[in-house]
Amino acid sequence: MTDRIEADYLIETPVAPQDAAAVMAGEQSSGTFLKLSTETPELVERAAARVERVTLVDSRTTPSFGGGIASGRYSVAEVTLSWPLENLGPSLPNLMTTVAGNLFELRQLSGLRINDLRVPAAFTQANPGPRFGIEGTRRLTGVSGRPLIGTIVKPSVGLDAEATAALVTQLVAAGVDFIKDDELQADGPACPFAERVRAVMAVIERHADRTGKKVMFAFNLTGEVDEMRARHDLVLEHGGTCVMVSLNSVGLAGMLALSRGSELPIHAHRNGWGYLSRAGMMGWSYVAWQKFWRLAGADHMHVNGLRNKFCEPDESVMASARACLTPLRPEAPCLAMPVFSSAQTPLQAAETYAKLGSNDLIHAAGGGIAGHPGGAAAGVEAMRAAWDAASEGVPLEQAARQSAPLAAAIKAFGA
Amino acid sequence: MTDRIEADYLIETPVAPQDAAAVMAGEQSSGTFLKLSTETPELVERAAARVERVTLVDSRTTPSFGGGIASGRYSVAEVTLSWPLENLGPSLPNLMTTVAGNLFELRQLSGLRINDLRVPAAFTQANPGPRFGIEGTRRLTGVSGRPLIGTIVKPSVGLDAEATAALVTQLVAAGVDFIKDDELQADGPACPFAERVRAVMAVIERHADRTGKKVMFAFNLTGEVDEMRARHDLVLEHGGTCVMVSLNSVGLAGMLALSRGSELPIHAHRNGWGYLSRAGMMGWSYVAWQKFWRLAGADHMHVNGLRNKFCEPDESVMASARACLTPLRPEAPCLAMPVFSSAQTPLQAAETYAKLGSNDLIHAAGGGIAGHPGGAAAGVEAMRAAWDAASEGVPLEQAARQSAPLAAAIKAFGA
Repeated sequence: MTDRIEADYLIETPVAPQDAAAVMAGEQSSGTFLKLSTETPELVERAAARVERVTLVDSRTTPSFGGGIASGRYSVAEVTLSWPLENLGPSLPNLMTTVAGNLFELRQLSGLRINDLRVPAAFTQANPGPRFGIEGTRRLTGVSGRPLIGTIVKPSVGLDAEATAALVTQLVAAGVDFIKDDELQADGPACPFAERVRAVMAVIERHADRTGKKVMFAFNLTGEVDEMRARHDLVLEHGGTCVMVSLNSVGLAGMLALSRGSELPIHAHRNGWGYLSRAGMMGWSYVAWQKFWRLAGADHMHVNGLRNKFCEPDESVMASARACLTPLRPEAPCLAMPVFSSAQTPLQAAETYAKLGSNDLIHAAGGGIAGHPGGAAAGVEAMRAAWDAASEGVPLEQAARQSAPLAAAIKAFGA
Repeated sequence: MTDRIEADYLIETPVAPQDAAAVMAGEQSSGTFLKLSTETPELVERAAARVERVTLVDSRTTPSFGGGIASGRYSVAEVTLSWPLENLGPSLPNLMTTVAGNLFELRQLSGLRINDLRVPAAFTQANPGPRFGIEGTRRLTGVSGRPLIGTIVKPSVGLDAEATAALVTQLVAAGVDFIKDDELQADGPACPFAERVRAVMAVIERHADRTGKKVMFAFNLTGEVDEMRARHDLVLEHGGTCVMVSLNSVGLAGMLALSRGSELPIHAHRNGWGYLSRAGMMGWSYVAWQKFWRLAGADHMHVNGLRNKFCEPDESVMASARACLTPLRPEAPCLAMPVFSSAQTPLQAAETYAKLGSNDLIHAAGGGIAGHPGGAAAGVEAMRAAWDAASEGVPLEQAARQSAPLAAAIKAFGA
C-alpha cells in the first residue's frame, strides 16, 4: 500500500461515523448519490477511496456548524481515508481537490478538519520541494549556530523606494540578518517593485562590501506568474538572495510556476491563514496545509510567534513550527525554516528554543527591534543576546547583567 | 474617490465596532502594533486604509470563535473599508492579500465574513475577465433561449479514456448540450488527459458531423501552469470547446496564467468552497469571492443547485447565481454563466427560473439524467421539457401530460 495517499480528518457527524466516512470516501472517488451500474466491483477495487480507520473520540448534542442532517447526537471521530496514486498522479493541485474538495459541504458532516496527510515518494520526486531550505539559507546569510534575526519594513505601505532604502540603511547598520517586505507591499504604483529592488540592493551591496555581511532581503514578488518570474530574475540580477510570496494569494499552480525556475530561497507568507483555520472544526490544520507548500518549494514558512498579537494559542504555533522541521519522507525531508513573527521581542527567545528544540528558524521582530529604546542596533543586539543565553541555558535576567541592550529590552517589552 | 477599492465585512467584536474597524484598517495598511514616527500624517493620508462605514446590527453574549479578547458582549457590525489603488495596483493576487490577509486572525474580532467588494475600473481593464461568457458559450453550443442542459461523467474516477468515450457516446446521443469531467479526474495515470481528449473528441466530432450539434465538453485541465497551457492547446487542437479548472486547487496566479492565453471558455469549479464559507461568521461570501474569479477569466461559475445534496440552503445558492449575473462594473459587466449542479433533476427547473429571472445558466444533472428510468435520452428530454414549461409559465404537472419522459422523471425523482 506504499502507493496510496492518506489523509487524516477530525469529523463531527450526525450519522454513524463509519457511515460518514464511507460517504466521504464515495464523494471523493467513484461514488455519486445514485448507485450506477458502471461502478463495477473491479472499478471500485481500482479507483475507490478506502476508509482506513475510524475512531470515535467524543460526542456532542449540538452541531458546530449548520446545514447538515439534524440529529440529537453528533459524534466526533478521527477518520483516515486513502486513495490510489493512479487516480491523480503526483499533482499537488489535484491532491488538493482529492483530499479537500467537496468534503466540507457534506450534509453528513457538521464539522470537518483536515489534520494531516501522507504522500507516496512519487510526490517528493515529482515536485520541487525547498531548493535552499535551512542549509541554503544559512549558507547565503553566513549565519550558523543561531537563528537568523529578522525584521520587517514598517510602515507596511506608504514608503516609496527611496524611503524604503533609507530605512534599510538603518536596519542593515543595526546588524540584522534578514529583512522582509510587508505582505501588503508588492508592486503598487506608490512603490514599484523594480525601483525598490534597485534602491534596496544598492544599500545591501554597499553594506556587504564594507562589512562582508550580505543581509538577506525577502522581496515580495506576489503577482501573476509572468510578473513573478520577471521579478525573481530582477532580484537575482541585482544580487538579491530571497523572494517572498503570499501563498493564498497566488495558489499552488502559481507557487509551482515560480519555484520550479527559482534560483533563490522562497519566503512563504501565509496571510489568509485565518479563514482556513480559525473556525476550528471547519478547515485546515497547519500540519496538513504546510506539506503542500513545502512540496511546492517553500524554503521559509510563517508560523506566527509565541504570545503573538493574533488569536493563535502558543501550542498551535509550536506545533506548526515543529511540523516544518519534521521530514516529509525519510528519503526526502523537504524541511522548511519556520519564521516566527508578530509582536516578537527578546523575551520569547528562550521559550521558543526550549519548545522547538532547535535554532533553525528566523526570528522576525518589527517593533521589537525598531522600537528598542536604544535604537535598532541595540534591538538586534538584545535579540542576539537573548538567543545566546537561550542556547547556553542561561536565564534571561542573568544574561541581561552582561548586556545593557538586553536589560533595556526586558524593561521596555517585559510584562 | 473613484480610485479606491472598497470591501464590506460583517464583523463580530469584543471591542467597540468603530475601534475594531480602525484596527482592521491599520493592520491592512500602514499601522503596526507600535506607533512609528515614520507613519507621518502625509503617509497616512496617502496610504492608509479608511473606515468608510460602521453599522451596528446585533450583539451577542458569546463569541462565535475563540482566541480573541474576552468580553461579556460581542457586537455584530457591518464595516466598509477602502484602500487607495496606489498601494497595490490592479493586481488580483495582491487584492486578495489586501482585503483578506491577516484580518481573520485579529484578537479584536471573534468573527469575520467578507461580504462584498468593489474595484475601480483599473481592475476590469488590467484583468482578462470572461472571454466567452454567456454569449460565447451560447455561440459555441448553438443553444439559445433556454439553459444548456449538462451532465457529468460518472463514476467520477475509475473509467479509462476508452470507457469515458463510450459513456460520452451515450450522452451525446441522448441530446445533452454540455458534459463535464468530474473535478477528481484530471491527468492521473489511470485516465491520462491526452488520451481522454483524443477519445472523447473523436466521439463529439463524429456526432457533430452527423447531427450538426457540437456538444461542449469541459475537460478538467487542473494542474501546474505549463501543464494547463499544454492541455488547453491540446483541447483546442482536437476541436474541443471548453476547459475546466478547480479554482481553489490552482489559485489566482494559476488561473490568470491559463486565462490570459485561453482561446476556450473556462468552466470554473469551486471545490473547496466549503472550507471558505461553511463556518458562517468566519470566511467568505460567494458574492465577494466570485468577483475575483470573474475578473480572472471564469466563463462559467459553479453555484450548487436548489435542494442540492450538500449543506447549502437554497437562498444562498440563488444569491450566488444572481451575483454571477450582476455586472461587475457598468462599463465592464464581466458576467459569468452560473452552473447549477448537485442532485439536480427536472423538478428544480421552474423554481430555479422563477428565482433567477433568467435562463442564462447551465443546468447539470448527473444521476438526474443517467438515472432516468427511460434512459439518458429521456432524462435530457425531461430536463428540456421542464425548462420549456418553466419559461412559458406552464405548471410542471400540466407539462408532464404532454411529455412522457417528464412524467416519468416526476415519478422517479419527485418527493
